[in-house]
Amino acid sequence: MSFLSEYLDAKRAVVEKALDAFLPPAGEPPARLHEAMRYSVFSGGKRLRPILALAAFELAGGEGDGAIAPACALELVHTYSLIHDDLPAMDDDDTRRGRPTNHRVFGEATAILAGDALLTLAFGIAAADERLAPDRRAAVIRELAEANGSLGMAGGQEADLEAEGAAPGLDAIEFIHVRKTALPLAAALRVGALAAGAGRADLDALTVFGRSVGLAFQIVDDLLDVTGTAEEMGKAVGKDLARGKMTYPGVVGVEESRRRAGELVDRAVGALERFGPRSRPLAEIAAYVAERRS
Amino acid sequence: MSFLSEYLDAKRAVVEKALDAFLPPAGEPPARLHEAMRYSVFSGGKRLRPILALAAFELAGGEGDGAIAPACALELVHTYSLIHDDLPAMDDDDTRRGRPTNHRVFGEATAILAGDALLTLAFGIAAADERLAPDRRAAVIRELAEANGSLGMAGGQEADLEAEGAAPGLDAIEFIHVRKTALPLAAALRVGALAAGAGRADLDALTVFGRSVGLAFQIVDDLLDVTGTAEEMGKAVGKDLARGKMTYPGVVGVEESRRRAGELVDRAVGALERFGPRSRPLAEIAAYVAERRS
Repeated sequence: MSFLSEYLDAKRAVVEKALDAFLPPAGEPPARLHEAMRYSVFSGGKRLRPILALAAFELAGGEGDGAIAPACALELVHTYSLIHDDLPAMDDDDTRRGRPTNHRVFGEATAILAGDALLTLAFGIAAADERLAPDRRAAVIRELAEANGSLGMAGGQEADLEAEGAAPGLDAIEFIHVRKTALPLAAALRVGALAAGAGRADLDALTVFGRSVGLAFQIVDDLLDVTGTAEEMGKAVGKDLARGKMTYPGVVGVEESRRRAGELVDRAVGALERFGPRSRPLAEIAAYVAERRS
Repeated sequence: MSFLSEYLDAKRAVVEKALDAFLPPAGEPPARLHEAMRYSVFSGGKRLRPILALAAFELAGGEGDGAIAPACALELVHTYSLIHDDLPAMDDDDTRRGRPTNHRVFGEATAILAGDALLTLAFGIAAADERLAPDRRAAVIRELAEANGSLGMAGGQEADLEAEGAAPGLDAIEFIHVRKTALPLAAALRVGALAAGAGRADLDALTVFGRSVGLAFQIVDDLLDVTGTAEEMGKAVGKDLARGKMTYPGVVGVEESRRRAGELVDRAVGALERFGPRSRPLAEIAAYVAERRS
């Protein structure tokens, strides 16, 4: 097994176990809601965000398990956003990671509530977990909220919906991608760094890394919608094009999109220089994001 | 003007001003989302929850403006819950406080995102506002999350939806009312007390007060749906009955419901004894809740 696979597997195991402990048991009333929450949290996600947080925590000198709750909070926020984005009123998706979407299984009302409850739980565990000092908990929650609210991810989703069918422009696409993907992904790194009490220079470097990887991730996502197969992706492909969504390859072409993704990954890896060889996991994750097939 | 009116007006003015400062400007992109958020936050709400928090803060010995952000966070959470509860997949309401509901004006997608963004902003301002010490911010956020997540308000809404059309039972109604109303309202008092660094005895007394007033509030709400007019309420009435929702008067009758509401208010006022005459605002609010006509 490669260095990266081993690293990801080890971190993923920690995250899976912690997520299970943070979520109320499936039988806890109202059982249907807790079943719906667990259905989407445990659906084969890569756990990229929590792993990035744990890696940043270590790189910024963090010790112990103070970053576990913040890392899980990131995954819960990510899961809530997927459930709500898939709703009929939003992207209207029937499958996600090869399985029926939450609202297709539990109905729209429960899916909305499952998303709401996961978002609420994310902040709850970040606030309550005593393995981290209270001032760092507050810093983590602030970061989570700012990256995912109306000036972050939720605002990006709104802009994305408004832009459907509109004439594509690179500015509009970047407005959306920065908010929907780059800020939330940078937040994963920043949350880990803040949990470690990182200084300004480390925080800035990890922010550059996160934003660059986030933008690259989104460009590759757009590319996969054009060039991937449904089997590889576990969801319908070609949907962006069909619904007139603005995408990177749609505006600048496949080749130029690939070039930009590569450039962003180089920039991300460059930002890690100050950390020396200890940054290998993050550097390899950046390369993996650009080369992934699903 | 009565003592209570003056008290409520003074506190409400503080809350309105702070809410305006915490919310991004209406013109901030994506403008439509920020417009939707402001539409529901500034729609003539009574600001009961933030006022309860500010009153509890003072009663528990809090000084200065450390409770302002927590109080506003409570109102943002309340507003998010109204927007989502009104959605077609949930209670499907067309009017709220005499105006079209959020999704009737902005569409379902934006309404979902406006709710999501308000919930996120609530935690963000509670985490970021430096007028409160970080450990108290963490305690406030934990309380907010626990009262409003799947074991609190969101769970109550799920149970409420599941119970529609089912044979009514008092246990089921109380499961719903405790989670949908009593816990979130008690959280308003607890958030104020936690912001003041209240000791256990004060916190317990304010919790009893909050839960009792919350249950009374919900019983009166059910009663108003039976006995109120649409004009007084600013929303459709008789809807609970029409959709087969379980209500207090539906199960135990109007008279017994009134008796229980009165009993709960007595219990609430009794819990304030330890605070002496300084508890007058809260005592009068409890009486007002039981006697309100809308």
